[in-house]
Formats: sequence, C-alpha cells, structure tokens
Amino acid sequence: MFSIKELQEIINTKIASEKIGREPFSLYDPINYTLEAGGKRIRPALVLMACNLFSEDIEQAINPAIGLEIFHNFTLLHDDIMDHADIRRGNSTVHKKWDENTAILSGDAMFIKAYEYFLDCESPRFRDLLKVFNETALEVCEGQQYDMEFETRDFVSEDEYLRMIRLKTSVLLAAALKIGALIGGAEQQDAAFLYEFGINLGLAFQLQDDLLDVYGNVHVFGKKTGGDIVANKKTFMLIKALEIAKDEELKTLKSLLSDKNIENEKKIQAVTQIYDKINIKQIVETRIEKLNQDALAFLEKVNVEKNKKSELQTLAEKLIKRIS
Amino acid sequence: MFSIKELQEIINTKIASEKIGREPFSLYDPINYTLEAGGKRIRPALVLMACNLFSEDIEQAINPAIGLEIFHNFTLLHDDIMDHADIRRGNSTVHKKWDENTAILSGDAMFIKAYEYFLDCESPRFRDLLKVFNETALEVCEGQQYDMEFETRDFVSEDEYLRMIRLKTSVLLAAALKIGALIGGAEQQDAAFLYEFGINLGLAFQLQDDLLDVYGNVHVFGKKTGGDIVANKKTFMLIKALEIAKDEELKTLKSLLSDKNIENEKKIQAVTQIYDKINIKQIVETRIEKLNQDALAFLEKVNVEKNKKSELQTLAEKLIKRIS
Repeated sequence: MFSIKELQEIINTKIASEKIGREPFSLYDPINYTLEAGGKRIRPALVLMACNLFSEDIEQAINPAIGLEIFHNFTLLHDDIMDHADIRRGNSTVHKKWDENTAILSGDAMFIKAYEYFLDCESPRFRDLLKVFNETALEVCEGQQYDMEFETRDFVSEDEYLRMIRLKTSVLLAAALKIGALIGGAEQQDAAFLYEFGINLGLAFQLQDDLLDVYGNVHVFGKKTGGDIVANKKTFMLIKALEIAKDEELKTLKSLLSDKNIENEKKIQAVTQIYDKINIKQIVETRIEKLNQDALAFLEKVNVEKNKKSELQTLAEKLIKRIS
Repeated sequence: MFSIKELQEIINTKIASEKIGREPFSLYDPINYTLEAGGKRIRPALVLMACNLFSEDIEQAINPAIGLEIFHNFTLLHDDIMDHADIRRGNSTVHKKWDENTAILSGDAMFIKAYEYFLDCESPRFRDLLKVFNETALEVCEGQQYDMEFETRDFVSEDEYLRMIRLKTSVLLAAALKIGALIGGAEQQDAAFLYEFGINLGLAFQLQDDLLDVYGNVHVFGKKTGGDIVANKKTFMLIKALEIAKDEELKTLKSLLSDKNIENEKKIQAVTQIYDKINIKQIVETRIEKLNQDALAFLEKVNVEKNKKSELQTLAEKLIKRIS
C-alpha cells in the first residue's frame, strides 16, 4: 500500500514533468501557471488510493488521475471568470493575470488536455472510464449552472442546495474513486460503494467549506473569511439560518441581506452574530458529522481487508477536520 | 453510395431528435438553440462521406459525425464571446441572447456532449478516433489563439497566416475525413490522403471566406460585407495587399488602417478600391484555385474507384465556388 504522502509525491512529480512546452505559449502558459499553483491534489490522490485498494500496480491509474486533476483545475479557471474571482490559491486568477479571452481559451485547451491523459490509459476498461469521466464532467457543469442560478434567486431550499453541491463538488470526488477502483480491477459493486463514499465525503467537504467561510482562519484557509456573507451567497449556513431564525433575528438577517450600503466588515460581523445566536455552527457541524459517518459506512462495505482502507479513512478525516 | 443531400438529411434528422431535455434548462437551452440554428453541416457530412468511400454501412459514423458538428458549434460559441460577435447565422449569439457566463458554461457542456457522441461509437478503432478528435480539438484552440494574437500585432506574415487558418479551420475538416475513413475501414495511407485533401480544402475555404468578406453578397453570404476591413483583420487579402502595394497605394492603405475616425462605409470603399487597383481579388482567386487543385490531387490518390469520389468532389466545388 502507498501512503497518501507517497501518492501526492507521485502526482506532483508527474505534473511537474509534464509542463507544456508547445507553441503558442500564450495558450499554454496559463495552463502551466494553473497547474503549478499546487492545490491539495485530492482528486488524483483518490484515484490512486482507490486503485491501490484492489491492486498493488497503480501505474495505469496515474494518467487518469492527472486527467482528473487537470479537469478540476479547468473548472476552477472557468468558474473564476464567471464568479469574477481575483485570487485563487494566493495567486491572481488567469483572467486577472492575463485577460478573459485567454482564460476562456486556455481553459478549453486545458479541458482537452484532461481528455488526453485519459486517452493515454491502457486499462481494458478504457471506455467505461471515459464514460464515467464524461458524465461527471457534465454534472459538474450542471452544478455550476445551479450555483449561478441560485445567486439571482431569493429562496433556495435545502434540497436544492444539496443537489447543487452534489453536482458541483461530490460527483467529481466520487468519480475519482470509481475510476481508480475500476482501473484496479474492482467489482462494479465495490466501485459503486466507493462512489457513494465519495458523494457523502464531498457533501461533508462542501458544508465544511461553507462553515470555514464564516468560522475559518484566513491564514489556514487561504481565502478571506466572510466572502460568502458579503456576496449573500446561499450557503448551507444561510439557508439553515433563514429556516431557523425567528422574529427579530429573521427580520435583522433579511434586512442585512437587502442592505446594499452596509460595510463588508459590519455585515460579516452582524450576520455571524445571528448565526452564533441560533447555533448555526453547531447545526452544520452535526450535519457534517452525519455525512462523514455515512461516508465511512459506505467505505466499510467495500469488500477489501480493513487495514487497506486506513489511508482513505485518514484522508476523509483530514478533509473534514480542516477547521481544528 | 449516399448523396450529400441524403447525408445532410440523416444529420439534421439525428440532431433534431437529440434535443436535450434534461435540467437545468438554462444550461441546455443555449445548446439546443445553437444546434437548431442550422449551418451547412459540412463536417458531419465529410465524416459520413469519407466512411461511405470504404463502406456501405455508415451507421457507426453517425455519432462521431454529430460529435464533430457539436464540437464545431462549441468553438463558434466560445469564439463569438472572444470576438464580441453579436450575430451568428442570422440569430443573436448566445452571449448576447443570454449572457457571457451562460455562453462560457453552456459551451463547456456542449464540448462534453461532443465527446459523449464519440463515446457512443462502437468502432474497433474507437481509441484512434478519439485521439484524432482530441489532438484536432487542441489544434483548433491553438488556431483561435493565433487568430486573437494577430489582432494585436502590426505585421503577420503569409506563412503565419496560413498556419493559423490551417489550425483554426483546416484540421477539423481534415479530421472529419480521417475519422470517417477510419470508421469505414480505410487503410492508414488512404485516411492520410483524405486528411491532406481536407487540409487543402480548408485553406481554400478560408481564403474564400476572406474574399467573400470584401466581394461577397450580404444576402447570399449571411454576414455584412467589409467587417474584416473595418476591424483591420489581417486576412489573406490584407496581408497580400500590404506585400504588393507600392508607394502611394501603400501609403494610403496604411493611413486607412491607422485612421480611427473614418466612417466604416468609407473605409470599406477606400480599402476595396486599393484591393481592386492591385488585383488582390485575382491573386487570391488564383491561390484558391491552386489549393483546390492540390486538394483534388490528394483525393485522386485515395485507393477507391473513381466514381465513388464524385460526391466529395461536388462538395469541394460547392464549398469553394460560393461566390458565383
């Protein structure tokens, strides 16, 4: 069995060695820039770990793992244009450092590069892998579309929100696990259990992300805290708060949401105060813990020796305990 | 053998039957809108015609043919954002009718749909087809990047321009032919000859497009004449004119290019007058004819009975004689 650290090293070494040196540089430089910026490499690690559950030979899983990481970074690149985000992983976003046209087109090229890595996989399940990847890619777009749509809506239900983050975040983690499992030779049933493990892990991860926007530390988390509050983003926190808050608190919360003149810092403080009063942090943490347990229950069902699953368990814990 | 008309009917029927009815509609409506707007369906027709050269059974080529058409429309959708184009095929472009974010994301989803059609092809050469498609898709992005880069440059050489249009236009026509041939069971050599046929045809087609911008009829051509002149687009016409024009004409041409206050109609008239004086139309027409001959010479080399090639010959003629 490989440790997470060993796998991340394999991934980073591979990505570093694959820098694109082809012309036009103006198309490929932003791709190199994006991939060199790092990130936690969670998705490729999941591919390799899932493969490693069923096989000691993870060689065939490396290219699809890189492909998924490139795809993930492509979605961030295009999302950052749509969300007008200036900073990603401490660096300027591509559309800021270059321009929007470059970001659109380099993103497209990056997406094509992701497929290239899948096409360089010799697994006999090649076609199945591509189908999982392709369907997942479409779902991720659907998730982003819902996310943008929700921005212009006054009300988003909890179910709608969970469907959105399932599409935007969970399915890619789940697909990473399924793809790795299939390459490793897993039975369809085990691949499906790992997929569900990934779905629940992804939901927990995203709720954690919502929580961190309010209660995270900017130095640990890398994003400025409170951004979701400033943007009136319909996060799980806000959806729950609007459901739970009563009377005076609900009135105050709604007036904060519609106040266009309030200073950012004041708004963050005031909304957080309401969250604190109605125990939103605890409610969300409980939900995260439940999703985490559901995830681990699916992992348990996978038909391999218990000790082989410890690395995936550790990664799951790391992902979801980011706050402490 | 199927006639071009029969093939185009097969393609249009298939596209009409494949309207996406899945949610979120806001993601998929722009895709349906784009595909319903029509177009000449040249690329899918080339896939089917090339397949039909080697096999009476074109069934397996239909999905990749649709995939290529969807890919082509995806590139137009994203190009229209980058080029700030308002009209495409007589309709508002997606970023105008909806907005830019929708155009970016629906474009991405459209690209994924293109792969979906490739993944639904049962050809034993499945992996080869995907590799041709993927490499071509990357080249098309490179072509668009050069095209945008040239806008900000003062000088573009003839060679640079030909490389750009080869990437932006020719390789996709060439790949359509190669993919169709491979599905039909062609030898690699014949597939390669058809690829070169497509390259030369594409170059001729693009030069024709440049010519039509100046000498075309708006009702036949569907675009307003002179747009390239207004935008100082470094077309083959302008590159040749800057090479050939001397003394007074060169001076006038250069001053027209740098005059920011001139009315569009006046500029079009004045530049066209210079083109007329130095015979640019004839020079470009001669070049188109040469490329056309080169294309047909490659078609001739393909090792199938001569009469089977007549439909491809007719299509080539139609594409390049659009002016008359």
